[in-house]
Amino acid sequence: MNAKRQIHVSLLTMPTLAHNDYGLWAHPESQKHRFREVSFWQELGRICEEAKMDALFFADGLGIADSYTGSIEVSLREGMHVPVLDPLLVAAAAMTATTNLGWATTISTTFEPPFGHARRMATMDHITDGRAGWNVVMSFLKNAEENFGVDAGLSRDRYNRSEDFMEVCYKLWESSWDDDAVIADRESQEYIDPSKVRRIDHVGEHYSSSGPALWDPSIQRTPVIFQAGMSTRGREFAGKHAEVSFMINREDDAFRASIADLRAKAAGFGRGRDDLKVLAYCGIIVGKTEEEARQKLAEFEKFTKVDGYLAHENALNGFDPLKHPRDKLVIDALAEDGLREETATYARGPEWTIGDLLDHVKDLAAEKMVAVGDPVHVADLLEQWMDEFDLDGFLLRSFLYPGSATDFRDLVVPELQRRGRYRTEYEGTTLRENIFGAGHTRIAESHPAAAYKAVTV
Amino acid sequence: MNAKRQIHVSLLTMPTLAHNDYGLWAHPESQKHRFREVSFWQELGRICEEAKMDALFFADGLGIADSYTGSIEVSLREGMHVPVLDPLLVAAAAMTATTNLGWATTISTTFEPPFGHARRMATMDHITDGRAGWNVVMSFLKNAEENFGVDAGLSRDRYNRSEDFMEVCYKLWESSWDDDAVIADRESQEYIDPSKVRRIDHVGEHYSSSGPALWDPSIQRTPVIFQAGMSTRGREFAGKHAEVSFMINREDDAFRASIADLRAKAAGFGRGRDDLKVLAYCGIIVGKTEEEARQKLAEFEKFTKVDGYLAHENALNGFDPLKHPRDKLVIDALAEDGLREETATYARGPEWTIGDLLDHVKDLAAEKMVAVGDPVHVADLLEQWMDEFDLDGFLLRSFLYPGSATDFRDLVVPELQRRGRYRTEYEGTTLRENIFGAGHTRIAESHPAAAYKAVTV
Repeated sequence: MNAKRQIHVSLLTMPTLAHNDYGLWAHPESQKHRFREVSFWQELGRICEEAKMDALFFADGLGIADSYTGSIEVSLREGMHVPVLDPLLVAAAAMTATTNLGWATTISTTFEPPFGHARRMATMDHITDGRAGWNVVMSFLKNAEENFGVDAGLSRDRYNRSEDFMEVCYKLWESSWDDDAVIADRESQEYIDPSKVRRIDHVGEHYSSSGPALWDPSIQRTPVIFQAGMSTRGREFAGKHAEVSFMINREDDAFRASIADLRAKAAGFGRGRDDLKVLAYCGIIVGKTEEEARQKLAEFEKFTKVDGYLAHENALNGFDPLKHPRDKLVIDALAEDGLREETATYARGPEWTIGDLLDHVKDLAAEKMVAVGDPVHVADLLEQWMDEFDLDGFLLRSFLYPGSATDFRDLVVPELQRRGRYRTEYEGTTLRENIFGAGHTRIAESHPAAAYKAVTV
Repeated sequence: MNAKRQIHVSLLTMPTLAHNDYGLWAHPESQKHRFREVSFWQELGRICEEAKMDALFFADGLGIADSYTGSIEVSLREGMHVPVLDPLLVAAAAMTATTNLGWATTISTTFEPPFGHARRMATMDHITDGRAGWNVVMSFLKNAEENFGVDAGLSRDRYNRSEDFMEVCYKLWESSWDDDAVIADRESQEYIDPSKVRRIDHVGEHYSSSGPALWDPSIQRTPVIFQAGMSTRGREFAGKHAEVSFMINREDDAFRASIADLRAKAAGFGRGRDDLKVLAYCGIIVGKTEEEARQKLAEFEKFTKVDGYLAHENALNGFDPLKHPRDKLVIDALAEDGLREETATYARGPEWTIGDLLDHVKDLAAEKMVAVGDPVHVADLLEQWMDEFDLDGFLLRSFLYPGSATDFRDLVVPELQRRGRYRTEYEGTTLRENIFGAGHTRIAESHPAAAYKAVTV
């Protein structure tokens, strides 16, 4: 393992009020209530670029979580992922404030056909000059199915549908137009050479699409593919398709094993160690001194709302600790509810009771992979986690907007740069170069999308 | 009729190389080749705003026209609507350069489900502070159906599908959230009042959607609805839904009758004379002097490509004059091909032969509603057309980018303002106020969308 592996960081966000920062919108320094304003996102983008991050990464949701307490009430009161704007449009509106930062958006493959999506991503890559990323997700939230008027069977078949969806996109992005199809000859007034544009004529189990792509190749062609996959099937998908995968923070052997398995799956698809970057979801509460960091933490915890975290957890895994007595062991409660042990991320050991869990939801520092301290301590932890779990970097969480990002820029980045673990200048101009280095603008030859590169008629 | 009716103008464009300006991208002053650059659209938006236009209006297409000459070759060589970027993303990226101009985008109701679209439009309205417009179209191009993998039956049923689609959107935009649902109380840390958010539970013939809307109400709620409807069924749809309708330029009795019929249909839906603005598609080639305008015209005609116009016409109506002998009458050729007389917009009278038509494709000044001359002459014509056809304004065509828009701003607008026919300041800040006047930010009570306003559970 390379001890000096560079640390890659992207900032996680969502164009909504509250997302892993429940209650903190009410903090006097929070600007998160401005999430409908382009200027808010432009400012955040500039901070991320000054911090020389790879990308600003937008989560999304297509329905309102309604299982916790049996209604959408908690989601609404907490502003938990609602209102949520369309992340791609927000990113398109704000991205002109930056020149190197990537803009990665979460878009589901479940409800809309691939052709329109493929054009939207190609447009984003064109207008950003090659800085578009796509976090591939499959939807399963009941209210999302209801919103799109589809039955649950469609969501259950989501991985197979998604494989077909990806194939349509790859064909449109990689095989439909040659790089030199646009000739733009002002003398002959001929714009495109028709011999260099072709149909894809895809007929899959779920999707058919003829092409040709309606757009000429953008700088990256295929946008950088992000994917989170925690389940076995999810890791199979990520191992094949993801160029950047992010894993929910669990500092244990199971977490290490998941990452090793993801890397093994990628290798099984013929992909090299450096063709897939693995980031861990991570929170940083940093001050110039340990004391300053502890003061920030105490303030964050003062505004933190337990309800938001429990409702979010519940939406992810269906677990509701309030249905169980305080003295029951969490593992017993999970077993009783038919849930896997690792789904309850607020239980931190086999001996934890429901009471322990409820008492510690607000205890942000006790969460996995939350670093609290001065810049040296935080950098030590990041380096330690990089090695301990074979990571390539972190997907950074915000407690405070934009305070968490400015603190990272001002306090952590200089320390990591001093240690030679963090870029001092961007290597290129595209998102894929931010992640894989100068010159790596197009998708790697080992990626399945590249299989379509050479198709000609 | 009010002789001093204000003249409303929006600029028609398309995020592609060539669109009603075939060949002119090769003009030395044209900037249209920069259509993939946000800065190009920002500059164009600023010019439109300086010209105090209502909106910049983006056309779209979802397939490559392939019927003319039996292939996509001409479309590609001419850059005729290909490459074409996603108009909504382009508009979102560029709109921050303006503060009053509306940004209206063409989006089809045919291939994607309404929920995602409704969120995208609401997002656009939020991030533009109420300046979003939607041009409702239904797709029928064969290659578009192939791209989305649907059979032709779906397109044939497009009006019924579209009615259902509109209803889902109206319910999501108008009925799902009360205006005061977001309370954002920092003391209680309560963001949304759950009693003011409700499901729509729409179950239609084609679409089902439960809601609630995932977004709080944007400034306009329903974006300004644009629609072009030339057929009888199209006018029925536009008479019901359109707030702004635009008609393809035909300076004849049939054109006058179409507009009168559209207004009658709107009245039949209980809508007032001023609830539907009718714009005519119009070209202006203006110089400080008549001679200067004629010089511009001659230059434009030098670069104009006949092939692009014939292919565009063919895509709209299936007519190919090259299949007929030069001495045949156009009306006979149309009858032979089973086409209506008014479909061939380059034939300008019953006595025209195929040869006349082919000889005049490049004759831009002979097209209907193309004004060539000095500012006084152009303003005279616009005023005359306003009265003659009972219009509310014009959808302006560009021959040269951005020359046609700057000429309109610098030469025509001051003359129209001198005559009291054109705004000197914007009346408000939203697109609907640009069109209907100060205070008219929300949809009129007479519009079918307003029927959903009061729904409560």
